[in-house]
Amino acid sequence: MCELLGLSCSDPSEIKLSFNEFCLRGGSTNIHKDGWGIGFYDNDDDGWRIFLDDKPAFSSKFAEVVKRHSIKSRIMISHIRRATVGALSISNNQPFMRFMWGRQWVFAHNGDLPLFSQDKFKHFNVIGQTDSEKVFCTILDYLWDKCPNGDCDYKQLTQYIEEASTNLSQYGVLNFLLSDGKFLFAHSHSSLYYTKWAYPAGQAGFPTPGISVDSPEVNQSMVEGIVVATLPLSTCAKWHKIGAKQVFAFEKGQALS
Amino acid sequence: MCELLGLSCSDPSEIKLSFNEFCLRGGSTNIHKDGWGIGFYDNDDDGWRIFLDDKPAFSSKFAEVVKRHSIKSRIMISHIRRATVGALSISNNQPFMRFMWGRQWVFAHNGDLPLFSQDKFKHFNVIGQTDSEKVFCTILDYLWDKCPNGDCDYKQLTQYIEEASTNLSQYGVLNFLLSDGKFLFAHSHSSLYYTKWAYPAGQAGFPTPGISVDSPEVNQSMVEGIVVATLPLSTCAKWHKIGAKQVFAFEKGQALS
Repeated sequence: MCELLGLSCSDPSEIKLSFNEFCLRGGSTNIHKDGWGIGFYDNDDDGWRIFLDDKPAFSSKFAEVVKRHSIKSRIMISHIRRATVGALSISNNQPFMRFMWGRQWVFAHNGDLPLFSQDKFKHFNVIGQTDSEKVFCTILDYLWDKCPNGDCDYKQLTQYIEEASTNLSQYGVLNFLLSDGKFLFAHSHSSLYYTKWAYPAGQAGFPTPGISVDSPEVNQSMVEGIVVATLPLSTCAKWHKIGAKQVFAFEKGQALS
Repeated sequence: MCELLGLSCSDPSEIKLSFNEFCLRGGSTNIHKDGWGIGFYDNDDDGWRIFLDDKPAFSSKFAEVVKRHSIKSRIMISHIRRATVGALSISNNQPFMRFMWGRQWVFAHNGDLPLFSQDKFKHFNVIGQTDSEKVFCTILDYLWDKCPNGDCDYKQLTQYIEEASTNLSQYGVLNFLLSDGKFLFAHSHSSLYYTKWAYPAGQAGFPTPGISVDSPEVNQSMVEGIVVATLPLSTCAKWHKIGAKQVFAFEKGQALS
């Protein structure tokens, strides 16, 4: 099993404090010590930056850099791993990334699907040994077939992701985060929570749920954000549980569904 | 224009010193200040770790981490960018990566192809605006069509890469490094050099061409490596110029062709 952390914001925001708490679960306060990864999507029409490490998040040199430096993004997906399927190797670390419709798709999964045995995919190649990567390729194959030109809106995307997830859920547990750099989709099976925050832009720090934002270019307006996590990361914010087998879509710090 | 740096070793080796010199050209001693990237392939059957940054390499926080910490790999491809085509953004930073034959392919290119206008590819999606990414997808499309099952050996691969490169070279300048995690292929058009080193494993440092290796597990045997670069990185090592429009294949620190 693993843990997930996701972020969707109206303006590029720091994930420092949420990420600090999350990393502690990667081998210190919890058992997810078998590697970690993070993907940042900074701006529209930009690319994802992905860092993968097979060391525990709480003591990783690269996690230290992410924590220490100000990395701002509009969308972020992170994953801490407790290996159940596949060796300790970079190819089994999440988030995974693939290319579809001229965009990069990024995915992280929590849960095991012991009954899922598919290993050939129509449009995608699998590199590592995890069922999570196969689940990702299965979902993308389904989206591609449903929408060959990539011109579907978020409602259609949400519906197709839900259909693919309903089918996959019969094989095991399927909590995941998926993003194309515009939307952040979250599917809950057993445990996924989100919290919402908003405050005036330009403020130096944000105490709960542990995110600081500094966006002087939108001074006086509000910066809004959503944090999604396997388990609540703070006691002072209100965390909403995402209903079982539901797909939520977030965009620019707003829940769309 | 840009600069390239590649490494192929018999055992996981540090790129620290070569990389330090290379980074200085990324905005300090040379003009390639529009971002940089690096891909490491550590072990057989593992995955690539890729770091991309749109800041100058010589002052990048992430390049600092690569320089400061001991990151060992068998194969490495790095790129410093001087933007000629495409905005300053992560999606235009190299090395690029794609999935084919159940392996990750990593590519970095130096040169402009102003006459190359292809923007649809059979098996691959382009994300950014550079001609380099299109060149990469063109080469992989060619390899895929020539060898649908991915069962060709390095000689066939070398030949197919040479064929694709001959065709592409009519559109402009094409110096590149390409790897599937096993072989490092280098195609020279105008400027690409390599140097070879070997010394007893277990030795703490290696003064020229600026690589230190520490592989106690193969103590008493020899560690061998190849460094490929757009321009020689040291005056004390002997650098061989790769002939124009030739493809060289390297594996485990040996030139195969």
